[in-house]
Amino acid sequence: MIIHIKKGVSEKIINEIAVKYHSTVLNETDKTVLITPYAINKIDDRYHKFVSETFVFDNDIQLASSAYIKDKREISVGKIKIGGNVNNTVVIAGPCSVESWEQIKMTAELLKSCGLTSLRAGCFKPRTSPYTFQGLGLEGLKMLDAIRNEYNLTIVTEVRDSTHADMVIEYADVIQIGAKAMYDHGILHKCASIKKPVLLKRGFGATIQEFVQAAEFILSGGNPNVILCERGIRTFETKTRFTLDLCGVAYLKKYTNLPIILDPSHAMGYAYGVPDLTRACLAMGVDGLLIETHPEPQKAKSDASQQLNHEEFKKLFQSLLPIANSIGKTII
Amino acid sequence: MIIHIKKGVSEKIINEIAVKYHSTVLNETDKTVLITPYAINKIDDRYHKFVSETFVFDNDIQLASSAYIKDKREISVGKIKIGGNVNNTVVIAGPCSVESWEQIKMTAELLKSCGLTSLRAGCFKPRTSPYTFQGLGLEGLKMLDAIRNEYNLTIVTEVRDSTHADMVIEYADVIQIGAKAMYDHGILHKCASIKKPVLLKRGFGATIQEFVQAAEFILSGGNPNVILCERGIRTFETKTRFTLDLCGVAYLKKYTNLPIILDPSHAMGYAYGVPDLTRACLAMGVDGLLIETHPEPQKAKSDASQQLNHEEFKKLFQSLLPIANSIGKTII
Amino acid sequence: MIIHIKKGVSEKIINEIAVKYHSTVLNETDKTVLITPYAINKIDDRYHKFVSETFVFDNDIQLASSAYIKDKREISVGKIKIGGNVNNTVVIAGPCSVESWEQIKMTAELLKSCGLTSLRAGCFKPRTSPYTFQGLGLEGLKMLDAIRNEYNLTIVTEVRDSTHADMVIEYADVIQIGAKAMYDHGILHKCASIKKPVLLKRGFGATIQEFVQAAEFILSGGNPNVILCERGIRTFETKTRFTLDLCGVAYLKKYTNLPIILDPSHAMGYAYGVPDLTRACLAMGVDGLLIETHPEPQKAKSDASQQLNHEEFKKLFQSLLPIANSIGKTII
Amino acid sequence: MIIHIKKGVSEKIINEIAVKYHSTVLNETDKTVLITPYAINKIDDRYHKFVSETFVFDNDIQLASSAYIKDKREISVGKIKIGGNVNNTVVIAGPCSVESWEQIKMTAELLKSCGLTSLRAGCFKPRTSPYTFQGLGLEGLKMLDAIRNEYNLTIVTEVRDSTHADMVIEYADVIQIGAKAMYDHGILHKCASIKKPVLLKRGFGATIQEFVQAAEFILSGGNPNVILCERGIRTFETKTRFTLDLCGVAYLKKYTNLPIILDPSHAMGYAYGVPDLTRACLAMGVDGLLIETHPEPQKAKSDASQQLNHEEFKKLFQSLLPIANSIGKTII
Repeated sequence: MIIHIKKGVSEKIINEIAVKYHSTVLNETDKTVLITPYAINKIDDRYHKFVSETFVFDNDIQLASSAYIKDKREISVGKIKIGGNVNNTVVIAGPCSVESWEQIKMTAELLKSCGLTSLRAGCFKPRTSPYTFQGLGLEGLKMLDAIRNEYNLTIVTEVRDSTHADMVIEYADVIQIGAKAMYDHGILHKCASIKKPVLLKRGFGATIQEFVQAAEFILSGGNPNVILCERGIRTFETKTRFTLDLCGVAYLKKYTNLPIILDPSHAMGYAYGVPDLTRACLAMGVDGLLIETHPEPQKAKSDASQQLNHEEFKKLFQSLLPIANSIGKTII
Repeated sequence: MIIHIKKGVSEKIINEIAVKYHSTVLNETDKTVLITPYAINKIDDRYHKFVSETFVFDNDIQLASSAYIKDKREISVGKIKIGGNVNNTVVIAGPCSVESWEQIKMTAELLKSCGLTSLRAGCFKPRTSPYTFQGLGLEGLKMLDAIRNEYNLTIVTEVRDSTHADMVIEYADVIQIGAKAMYDHGILHKCASIKKPVLLKRGFGATIQEFVQAAEFILSGGNPNVILCERGIRTFETKTRFTLDLCGVAYLKKYTNLPIILDPSHAMGYAYGVPDLTRACLAMGVDGLLIETHPEPQKAKSDASQQLNHEEFKKLFQSLLPIANSIGKTII
Repeated sequence: MIIHIKKGVSEKIINEIAVKYHSTVLNETDKTVLITPYAINKIDDRYHKFVSETFVFDNDIQLASSAYIKDKREISVGKIKIGGNVNNTVVIAGPCSVESWEQIKMTAELLKSCGLTSLRAGCFKPRTSPYTFQGLGLEGLKMLDAIRNEYNLTIVTEVRDSTHADMVIEYADVIQIGAKAMYDHGILHKCASIKKPVLLKRGFGATIQEFVQAAEFILSGGNPNVILCERGIRTFETKTRFTLDLCGVAYLKKYTNLPIILDPSHAMGYAYGVPDLTRACLAMGVDGLLIETHPEPQKAKSDASQQLNHEEFKKLFQSLLPIANSIGKTII
Repeated sequence: MIIHIKKGVSEKIINEIAVKYHSTVLNETDKTVLITPYAINKIDDRYHKFVSETFVFDNDIQLASSAYIKDKREISVGKIKIGGNVNNTVVIAGPCSVESWEQIKMTAELLKSCGLTSLRAGCFKPRTSPYTFQGLGLEGLKMLDAIRNEYNLTIVTEVRDSTHADMVIEYADVIQIGAKAMYDHGILHKCASIKKPVLLKRGFGATIQEFVQAAEFILSGGNPNVILCERGIRTFETKTRFTLDLCGVAYLKKYTNLPIILDPSHAMGYAYGVPDLTRACLAMGVDGLLIETHPEPQKAKSDASQQLNHEEFKKLFQSLLPIANSIGKTII
């Protein structure tokens, strides 16, 4: 349950109410918001006068709920806005991992040639095996920093675990929390204490309920800029890497107020299916797309099979424009 | 492994080869096709001269494989063709169940008003509970027959189990095998012995491999007209009824030669998500869409929550046309 | 909701009530049982005097619910009783498929040497591929018949689809409905019209709710002798064939009144894991175990990898006796 | 691939080989072990003489593979040994969370009364919701420390994320990595740098392959003391919290060299099913059991529904002894 406390109520009273109802306290410019872990049947008479409004929810999705804030939140991805009343679909593209200066420069050129502004690339890779490439770490972040300056790009990069979260937060424009880190309280708490936008990926074993509750950790900690990213869930089907859950996306569009970005590359796991899936994702009417592309996918140090080469990416990109047009979206 | 036997080889020889290699025999107009359960390293010298061509596959998908027949099969859905070089996306719509003469007539009028020609409605419902509406049975089939004649429509209707398969085969233009019946050998064998097109739905617990292998039962029995229908698989996510597997569809498009129709209504289970999902399905570039619509969904005797009302359907239909146009498809 | 109608109420009145409440009617020796698809708030005053008892359930599990009949049903498997107050765990063993007279005779000898009485073997195999062995059909049933007579064994064998259901019902002592046929209404209805015990396997994509509802089809049609069989569900894990759902078994033990038999062989898919799993299943305190064993598993025409050879079976069988003893069960 | 380098080879040479084959280097007392990310067809002639033995694996499970070390590793849980040739099944019990001094003291008394020595209780809870109890943190660890000293108990407690990993490592005797943290590289690397035993729980969305690969991070970093813990995976079945994967356990027993502990409490999610499941787990022949028990489960601040009360625990414990005896295990 969410309780809005009127402006001007003393901190002492707010604390009293918060303690009484086991609430999380969120200070906003124009009001104080208390969030309780359960619905309160009747607020104590003593406190009634301090309360301006209350919101009850049928499950533990609260700040992210469209029953709380009806309109989709507007969030900035660099100079671009998504969500809100803006009909933008941002295309964020780049390789799985930063591998070399040349590779990342070629990616920047590709984006520029398409008129795109958002580059994705990982420096801390949450690999399944300890024996394979684990990412360039800080060295990679510094390369991304240089590229940002040179090409005026927005950098989206991933934090793998809490040990380097501060570093990623410093270098990234948009902090990506990877699927395997969705439950990482250390990361969630750090991302809650900043204002930079956070691209939160759904854990591949996480329900939508849990996914949005992970977003609640960030929102209730004070960062309102959370973007949800569906990237495929794990099912019994193994011909493809994961199963992109567009039914779940329909649910998120209706029941939450957070912008949604889709990642068909990780869902599919194979480049051949990415173009069709990307077009389907776009036609769902979402706020963004995350596409993996690499100058030479077959030489990639991670996710080699699912990255488009630059020619394939350009061809896909061209095919998106008329679809966007037909549904009233602007690719950006 | 598939072995093509030259035209003119005697039945006796063909039988000898078939027995030797445990083959299924499929007589086509221009050749005899033997399908073996495993790859044969080297065909016996005695038989070599009778063989015109051989095809080896890396799994037990054979006749349906794009490695056997490269181009998508062209199949008729009534007067409309799908697959092949025809860029049609057929929209098949109607209620979950035939409930009354008036309901089915209103549906026919709706289709006509949109310029559509294919009506779906079930008479034998594979319900989960024995205590709810089980369908009108033969009475329903007769109503569909009358509607077909009056409105010149193509009738797509479902067979639930082998006991009434002959009846459905007689009345339907396209025989739908429902998700729960995908493994029903009785139905598969009966559908193999006819030439009417069969819309085979993927079992919600079936892998793509098993799905296509079910199609192989029909194809190898002599009916080449099989259309695959993805309608959502069962996953851990329960906010939606099923999870539409578009990654799987990308696989089917690449690795099989069968046309594909998608059913977003059953996948989603809730009407609110059907329009977005349908647009996504269309943008995948598939051969058809199966949409549930009912004059008064809230009064429907089955699947009440997921059927669009006729206004919603028309609005959705209008939104499909520009998307189809943008990807080079014709809605029909 | 279940309504018990007092003895002696006229058929006319019963029909009136049944029609009013959309009920399924089940005539039992001492009462008439009406089962409605939903709970009725208040039974009409006119009918109140005819009603002896009512039972409301929180989901559509009714006749099978332990809230309706508290004690587990006692069901005969040949001369053996399971369920009720009998602490028996019946071990039903045999090959996946009847393949030859010699093979099935060796199996009978094995059972006899262990003091067991129940033989399982399939004649109609629901294979995934059309190109592999599909079972001996009626010929196999006749072999089982002869073995029954010669060795005084109880025959458990599977019906694959409705086309041969009558045949299997005639020859089997216990009719097994396979996992892929769990939803087959044709089979369920036929099994509802007899009194022979039915071993209903859970579909590998079916929830427990659906599984028990399939049993309701048989129970509400008039056959009270349904045994549930858990045999593994399909999950994302592929190192094993399926995932045996013992958590689900704990639920079934608590919330239903039907005896439960477990099939570790199909769940595991590999012989190496069957002994440990079988011991675990036994320690769950269930009513029976279904174990695949073959004189020469490597030569089996189906399920070769998961069948124990006869030596392995005997060794496993010996290890079960002390565990059964430690939990108060009798292996039979 | 694992390469054993002979004793006495210079560090320079070892480094050369390691670099050449992209190897992880593990210094053991009697040899140096290089682990490569892929199999090498032929080791370079120059290096051949330095190599004592090589091991090739068919997947990326290496140090944990029973193809590398045939016998199960022996690992200490406090004063108790598990694995190896010791037929112990350690029972680790206690509440989900440390909540109060009295609660944890009562738990210690319970363990003592059963002759058990290992207490589990969490201080950093990976809750799904930000609005509920998150654990006592350091205060809880200090309470566990005091209890250890007073009762001479082994403390098993959980690390939630990297931010407090050092703290948990300091206080715990056995570091538990929770299911949601299985992929946390920060934690895995910290646990690799110590020698305390690590109880690694399988992520509920993780395959067995990924689970054992997470163990490889710890093993290859230098800590040989990893215990695997299966605690239920997420499936489509929602009547129970998770699905305990005993088929997977059979695989782990055969193909890895790591001791295995099972957690039926989290798998089931409901106390009623825990006793039957625990007996099944024991009969699988595993090295340990993790059971949640709380003096007053209905008042528990987390996992209230699944914890046994102390009477139920004692009754369950008594029932385990004869089963353990019947399979040659000692409960400890």
